[in-house]
Amino acid sequence: MGGTKIATGIVDPDGNVLDKVIRPTEVPKGERRVIDNIFETIYESLSIAGLSIKEIGGIGIGSPGPLSVKEGVVISAPTLGWFDVPIRDLVATEFGVTTVLDNDTNVAGLAELWYGAGKDSTNMIYISVSTGIGSGLLLNRKLYRGTNDYAGEIGCITVLEGGPLCSCGRKGCLEALASGTAMANNAKESIRNGAESMILDLVAGDIESITALTIAEADKAGDQLAGKIIDSAIKYLSIGISNLISIFNPDTIVIGGGVSNLGDRLFIPLTEQVKNRALKAPAAGVKILPSQLGGEVGIIGAAALVSNTDI
Amino acid sequence: MGGTKIATGIVDPDGNVLDKVIRPTEVPKGERRVIDNIFETIYESLSIAGLSIKEIGGIGIGSPGPLSVKEGVVISAPTLGWFDVPIRDLVATEFGVTTVLDNDTNVAGLAELWYGAGKDSTNMIYISVSTGIGSGLLLNRKLYRGTNDYAGEIGCITVLEGGPLCSCGRKGCLEALASGTAMANNAKESIRNGAESMILDLVAGDIESITALTIAEADKAGDQLAGKIIDSAIKYLSIGISNLISIFNPDTIVIGGGVSNLGDRLFIPLTEQVKNRALKAPAAGVKILPSQLGGEVGIIGAAALVSNTDI
Repeated sequence: MGGTKIATGIVDPDGNVLDKVIRPTEVPKGERRVIDNIFETIYESLSIAGLSIKEIGGIGIGSPGPLSVKEGVVISAPTLGWFDVPIRDLVATEFGVTTVLDNDTNVAGLAELWYGAGKDSTNMIYISVSTGIGSGLLLNRKLYRGTNDYAGEIGCITVLEGGPLCSCGRKGCLEALASGTAMANNAKESIRNGAESMILDLVAGDIESITALTIAEADKAGDQLAGKIIDSAIKYLSIGISNLISIFNPDTIVIGGGVSNLGDRLFIPLTEQVKNRALKAPAAGVKILPSQLGGEVGIIGAAALVSNTDI
Repeated sequence: MGGTKIATGIVDPDGNVLDKVIRPTEVPKGERRVIDNIFETIYESLSIAGLSIKEIGGIGIGSPGPLSVKEGVVISAPTLGWFDVPIRDLVATEFGVTTVLDNDTNVAGLAELWYGAGKDSTNMIYISVSTGIGSGLLLNRKLYRGTNDYAGEIGCITVLEGGPLCSCGRKGCLEALASGTAMANNAKESIRNGAESMILDLVAGDIESITALTIAEADKAGDQLAGKIIDSAIKYLSIGISNLISIFNPDTIVIGGGVSNLGDRLFIPLTEQVKNRALKAPAAGVKILPSQLGGEVGIIGAAALVSNTDI
C-alpha cells in the first residue's frame, strides 16, 4: 500500500508472484474508499488465480507507518490519509483468514531475507533509500521490531551534529543528508544560490520539480554539481552504514529504494568508503548488496509476513 | 577477569553472590599463570562455600575481548596479555562442567537484565562508560551477539564527523568524545594549552596522571574546565543514546562503568538531553537508569550466562 497505488498478489511458498493486481489508492476519496479498494484487489487476485480464499494461507499487508504490528493498526500514514485505521482486523473480518500487518520497510527486508539478496544471511540489515531512509532489522533471521514496533528508524540517526534540518524536526539526521529528498533539496539550494548546472535545463527552469532522478540523469551526463551531491549522499550513507556495522556486526546489508537504482555509481564508492571507515573486524565479512526483488519486494514480503511471524 | 584482578564467586539461581574470591591477575607472570590463577579462584570459591563441583550448574566467564563466544576463545585481550587463548575449554576440561565465555560488557548487561535495573525490561541496552565505551544488546530478553560476536561496539559509532582520534584509529567515535579516557585527554590538552583549572592542583602538577575521577572531583568543587568537559561528554553520550533509541526502540537503557558513578550529575542532564534530542515516539517510554549491581555485576552476569545461553 502506498499513497499512489495498491499492489496485491498471490504468492506461492517459494516466493513466486502468481498474479498481481494494481489499482489506484484513491486517497482523496477518503479512508473507507481506500479500504474498499484493498478488498477489491484481493477479490480480483483470487479470481484471476482461480483460487478460493480457503486455499490461501493468509493475508500480509505492508503499509507506511508508524503502525502497531501487535494491534494491527496503522497509527498515522499521511500519504494514505489514514489515522488509527485497524486495517488488519478489517481485512481479517472480510476474508476470514490470518492477517498480518507490518510497515513497508520491514516487509521489504523480510522479502529480501527469504527470497532475495539475503537468502544466505543470518544477520541482515535492509536499508531503503528513497524519499526517506528506513531499515528492517533481520537478526538471527527474524524481524526485530522493538518495544512499540518503531525499531529500525535509521533515517533519524545523527550523522552530522548541527547539520541540515530533517522532516522529524531534528538536525543532521541521515535522512536529511542522504535521502532522495535531501539530494533534491541540496540541488535546489545550490541552484538558487547561483550554482551552474544542467539540472536546471532538465527541469526546464522549474527548480521546485527537481528530484533525485533529475540529479542522477545530470550526473550521468557529467554535471559537476550533480556529481558532488551524489558523492555527499554516499559519504553520509557510508557513515550511517559504518555505525550499523559497529552496532550489529551483520553479515549482509541490502540496499533498496529508488536511490539504489544508481547502481554501480552508488555501490562501488559506498562499499569502498565503508571498508575504509568501518571498524575492521566486523566490517571484514560484510556484503553490501542491491535489493534483488525490485518492484515486487512489497508483495513478496507481505506474503512472507504470514509464514514468518510469531508476534 | 580484568588486567588487575580476577573475581570469582558462587551465585545462586536468584542472583545472590554466596561467596567471592578475588586475587591479582598477575599478567606479567605470563598466560599460563593467569589461567592457573583462574583455576585457583574457582577451587577456593568451592572450598569456602563447602560445595563440590558436582553441585554447580556450570561456570561462566566474562573476559575483555574481542573473543569468540561460539569457540570459547579470547582472540585478543592486551590487558590480560592473552592472544588466542581457548579459556572456555581449558576451564571445562579442568572442572568437567558446562562452561560459557562471553565479553565483559555482554556479561554485565545480562546481569542487569536478570537481576538488576532491567528486570522488567523486554528490550534493554546496557552501556558501559569507563575507560572505553561498549554495550550489551538484550533484545527480547536475549543477548544479541552478531555474526562474529562483535555486536554492540557502540564506542565506535561516529558522533562527530572529523572529531578527535579514537584508539580504533578512526575519528569522532563516541568513545573518543565521551569515555573516561576522552575526558582525561580533553583536560590534559586544555591544561597544556594554558587553561586554568584546579585539576592541575589535584594531581600535584602531574598532567599525565589526570583521570576522569580527578575531573569529577574538580567539577564537584565548582571548577569551570571540569564542568565543561563533563558537559561535553554528556552531550555526545546523548547523541549516541538518541541514535540507539531510533535504531532499537528499547524500553530501558542501563548505564554502568566508572563514569556512571557521576550519578545525578550525569543522569539528570543526560535524560533531559535525550528527551529533547531523540525521536519522540520511541523516546517517549524509554527509561535511562544507572546500573544496580555495582561491583558484583561481572560475577552475577557470568553466572547468568550459564543459565541463559543457547549458543
